[in-house]
Amino acid sequence: MTFSVTVLGSSASIPAYGRFPSSQVVNHNEHLFLVDCGEGTQIRLSQYGFRRGRIHHIFISHLHGDHFFGLMGILTTMSLLGRKKPLHLYSQSQIMEVIRVQLEVAQSRLLFEVILHPLDEVRQEVVYENEVLEVVVIPLKHRVPCWGFLFREKRLSRRFLAEKAEQHRIPFRMISRLKAGEDYVTPSGEVIKSSEVTADPPVPRSYAYISDSAYDEDLVPRIKGVDLLYHEATFDEANRKRAEQTFHSTAKDAARIASLAEAKQLLIGHYSAKFKSLDGLLTEAQEVFPNTLLAMDGKVYEVGTGQ
Amino acid sequence: MTFSVTVLGSSASIPAYGRFPSSQVVNHNEHLFLVDCGEGTQIRLSQYGFRRGRIHHIFISHLHGDHFFGLMGILTTMSLLGRKKPLHLYSQSQIMEVIRVQLEVAQSRLLFEVILHPLDEVRQEVVYENEVLEVVVIPLKHRVPCWGFLFREKRLSRRFLAEKAEQHRIPFRMISRLKAGEDYVTPSGEVIKSSEVTADPPVPRSYAYISDSAYDEDLVPRIKGVDLLYHEATFDEANRKRAEQTFHSTAKDAARIASLAEAKQLLIGHYSAKFKSLDGLLTEAQEVFPNTLLAMDGKVYEVGTGQ
Repeated sequence: MTFSVTVLGSSASIPAYGRFPSSQVVNHNEHLFLVDCGEGTQIRLSQYGFRRGRIHHIFISHLHGDHFFGLMGILTTMSLLGRKKPLHLYSQSQIMEVIRVQLEVAQSRLLFEVILHPLDEVRQEVVYENEVLEVVVIPLKHRVPCWGFLFREKRLSRRFLAEKAEQHRIPFRMISRLKAGEDYVTPSGEVIKSSEVTADPPVPRSYAYISDSAYDEDLVPRIKGVDLLYHEATFDEANRKRAEQTFHSTAKDAARIASLAEAKQLLIGHYSAKFKSLDGLLTEAQEVFPNTLLAMDGKVYEVGTGQ
Repeated sequence: MTFSVTVLGSSASIPAYGRFPSSQVVNHNEHLFLVDCGEGTQIRLSQYGFRRGRIHHIFISHLHGDHFFGLMGILTTMSLLGRKKPLHLYSQSQIMEVIRVQLEVAQSRLLFEVILHPLDEVRQEVVYENEVLEVVVIPLKHRVPCWGFLFREKRLSRRFLAEKAEQHRIPFRMISRLKAGEDYVTPSGEVIKSSEVTADPPVPRSYAYISDSAYDEDLVPRIKGVDLLYHEATFDEANRKRAEQTFHSTAKDAARIASLAEAKQLLIGHYSAKFKSLDGLLTEAQEVFPNTLLAMDGKVYEVGTGQ
């Protein structure tokens, strides 16, 4: 089952060196989730081969422009392309005013409904789920209300091994009970163990998107054991003061959170325009947490492979 | 004196094939004027090497998103970069509400003043001028209030030829009168003709930006003899009906206006996402007006060379 993250933009507020502002596509089982929507997101989607019509859920971490200035462009384009399906928007509710005003000045309207899932009062809860995945909102510590998102696979029941079960002539009605771990006793008294005809389910994987945030150890229990942790790393150690003043993190901060949370892998991004080369940020993070990767526009990161 | 147009975006409403939405930089005598400001304009500026701090005047033709969704990004970035100088914005006044709401949700403010020059009631008048250039607003025929912009050099007085004047020992106080065409009679009665010690001034050049517009012959007298005419050409002849329905032009429409206006050169742009190749649009325009060029993102067009 696909579980990957494509970075559409890795820049902090001032886009520089070809890096676009924050935006990512999370692909889980071919469901696409758009996470943040900085200026140029629709351009990146088209550039990286994502059909805009496949996106039905957009998560906006907070209302600083570099995380949502691309939203109106996408909505407008979806409407021009004839979209009818509702679109789910997970955001602070004020976003609706931003949309309303810009449609009003254009004397325009969208051909589809935008269903707002307001995050204003959300502390930590599941805001989206389907059969195999849920998305949990995580409050972050920033200058304005801000939320992270944890994409977490559900724990599935054991996988049924049809061929083995046939050998034992197991009746259909027993399938769900064997998958739940119950053994089966045949009419002749033979015991067929659940583990014989079922296999362990896949280990659930998880991806945490920690958008703009000060260094915050409160995050640790909320993302404990996450497979891939994206954590912003706007600055390096030389700019630690600036990071603290602006409620941002350094690369080392991100690595410390990854380490405390026992994440399998760390992805840093949201780079300040100060940094043409990102080598320094990577090195500083890797000193604390070796399995760190740089978020790069256009790159795809698999969740749960830990490479 | 430099007079050029750099196309930052040549796409109509749905950006496609690497083309960004509408935006141009007009460089006159190293003064930069930003004309329209589609999504990604600040990214293009940086990509094409324009310092954002050099822009003090932004013209917005109308409030369809593909012409202004990039404005907030630029304003925010200018502020983050510490801009203090006021910025002049020529637009329908509702744009200020768009700015206000987006600053409000971000709990943010700009460090500089945005001075609005409202176009709402403007019919055809000079909205900007300096010693050598003026910008005239031209009302356009579109679905919403829409304006074009004519960048027109002023007619300068004759150029004074200092070396020749010295040979004739012409007193300083006569310079401006000679430049104005008056002859000079020396104390000994010799007549020094104005044309002897002055040269013709440069021929004033002009650039017209005709943003979204239906075919409209009312434009012709307003842009008569323009050196370079940018005219939108969203569609080809096969999509003429669609052009008419949406108050857009075909490439042939643009060429007809160029021809009637006796423009020296035509630049077409604002291409529908229907067109991957632009060859067909160019051919159709050139059948009517041979000296037609395609607007391409990143390309610089000189005004007045007529090539």
